[in-house]
Amino acid sequence: MKALTASVIVFSTICLTATHAQAEVRNEPIKVIEPYVSESPEKVELGKQLFFDPRLSMSGIISCNTCHNLSYSGTDNLKTSIGHKWQAGPVNSPTVFNSSLQIAQFWDGRALDLKEQAAGPIAANVEMAMPHTLAVDVIQSIPGYRSQVEAVYGTNQVTLDHITDAIAEFEKTLVTPNAPFDRWLQGDDNAITEQQLAGYQLFKQAGCVACHYGEALGGKSFMKMGLVQPYESDSPSQGRYDVTGKEIDRFMFKVPTLRNVAITYPYFHDGAANTLEEATQIMGQLQLGRNFTKDELANLVAFMESLTGERPKISLPLLPPSGENTPRPNPFQ
Amino acid sequence: MKALTASVIVFSTICLTATHAQAEVRNEPIKVIEPYVSESPEKVELGKQLFFDPRLSMSGIISCNTCHNLSYSGTDNLKTSIGHKWQAGPVNSPTVFNSSLQIAQFWDGRALDLKEQAAGPIAANVEMAMPHTLAVDVIQSIPGYRSQVEAVYGTNQVTLDHITDAIAEFEKTLVTPNAPFDRWLQGDDNAITEQQLAGYQLFKQAGCVACHYGEALGGKSFMKMGLVQPYESDSPSQGRYDVTGKEIDRFMFKVPTLRNVAITYPYFHDGAANTLEEATQIMGQLQLGRNFTKDELANLVAFMESLTGERPKISLPLLPPSGENTPRPNPFQ
Repeated sequence: MKALTASVIVFSTICLTATHAQAEVRNEPIKVIEPYVSESPEKVELGKQLFFDPRLSMSGIISCNTCHNLSYSGTDNLKTSIGHKWQAGPVNSPTVFNSSLQIAQFWDGRALDLKEQAAGPIAANVEMAMPHTLAVDVIQSIPGYRSQVEAVYGTNQVTLDHITDAIAEFEKTLVTPNAPFDRWLQGDDNAITEQQLAGYQLFKQAGCVACHYGEALGGKSFMKMGLVQPYESDSPSQGRYDVTGKEIDRFMFKVPTLRNVAITYPYFHDGAANTLEEATQIMGQLQLGRNFTKDELANLVAFMESLTGERPKISLPLLPPSGENTPRPNPFQ
Repeated sequence: MKALTASVIVFSTICLTATHAQAEVRNEPIKVIEPYVSESPEKVELGKQLFFDPRLSMSGIISCNTCHNLSYSGTDNLKTSIGHKWQAGPVNSPTVFNSSLQIAQFWDGRALDLKEQAAGPIAANVEMAMPHTLAVDVIQSIPGYRSQVEAVYGTNQVTLDHITDAIAEFEKTLVTPNAPFDRWLQGDDNAITEQQLAGYQLFKQAGCVACHYGEALGGKSFMKMGLVQPYESDSPSQGRYDVTGKEIDRFMFKVPTLRNVAITYPYFHDGAANTLEEATQIMGQLQLGRNFTKDELANLVAFMESLTGERPKISLPLLPPSGENTPRPNPFQ
């Protein structure tokens, strides 16, 4: 009985300590990333296979993972992506990491959520160039996919909806918690350096945080690219204007997340800025009318380097073999 | 003491049974695949990262895994591969699975081993189009690679030799043991069906096994494509002749492995045969002067389906971030 009492006391103390530590989470405009726990691991697994499956492209070599490379930064680190027949895409490929924490998808926000987004690149001629009907036929023809769709959705008639829903569910798991800055937010004073803290103070004082806030440090609003000074770009994209046709939306782009920004170069919707320092300087001038000094830039970059989180550990999916009647890829169509 | 004695007797019996079972491995021209155990897991890990790293290509999107997709069959399942700037390669991409069990690499055997092979596609203009010097500069510029090269090879001066040696060591782990046919070879009568056994008997009687023998069912010799009847192809490849310039080597190709052949379609060096049945029929006619009946073909195909082994379970590597001076990809150069 004594031992039990002692255990209870120790346990209570631990609980109190934990509660105490939780209460110390810093109240900042930037919030900690929480891991995502799916209610359907089977759907996540199906979505992962589809994410890695190049049979969703007309050529048979481009998968979601080609431009959103999960081995690295969740993007391809190119100025703009390379798609079907080596076409250059119009805008820089955004990272898929933490994309679930954003209000809309694509630079111009034309998809409301990840599910709607996933359908876009499959059919886009400049990306995977796969008509949706053919994509569905391919997945339907693969016995190992049919059985998984049946287990997850209760029907063996595959639809585009199943495909994009499963991919979206997998993508929700692609968050990158436990960045040094998250640990600092959770009360660990030693998680970031003094320079990084100075950078964060400047990040708030200078007004960067007005757009780059929340869990993702961005992704929560649209903002004009070139607010104070106009931005010159060789990209054809006009941002939200391309979606709404309203003059007020011209050059309005979704504010990109700054999570893992140190490894998601090059920067901006046109991928024109090669380094984080260059991108930060341009942002200061164009959005805030401010020329950061060399020291200020160094501090801001140091702060942003503390935003690199833990990338998800992923086992490479084993894709189900094609069936006898699976339509074959056609790279040169 | 009694209990101990009993244990010893039980233990001895188990050992004897085990030995007995081992002795029952069938004596056939086809041998069981054994898993590969590397003496340097660090080298395997480095090689895995390099295998998945698209920064070894000029474009920044093509990695070894693009054409030798480990999610699926160790190949890209295309007639011929798509390389830099969407160029079509001259021959079908062979599976990397079980490639270590072969006497030479490439269809024409121009590389003696996996290490020599790995250097080829990196620099080939039609594949990754990356000059070796630039590939070495890129890897040397990435801090996370420099430290791994130092740990494995004892120097922080990266060479092409390190890169290809590590990739080759990773590739040696890519064997696919425990196919149903392997279990049959090990004495499990129920591991294959009667039809598969009938197919195997025919495989031996008809002479297929003269070339497709050993652990890999092939990969141990070169043979003329079109031994009895000439083979017509739209591929420019002349096989070994392209390497030696000797007339006797014209159309001599390395005999491909039949391991996992059910999922490594399309077939032949030019990828001209779409199905296993078609490929088997053509092989019978051209190499053996024999027209297999429909039933014979079905049996042979059933046998070959028993050769699909366990593909390695691979965790997706997390690639080390580029350094400040890492040369950037140039997709349109």
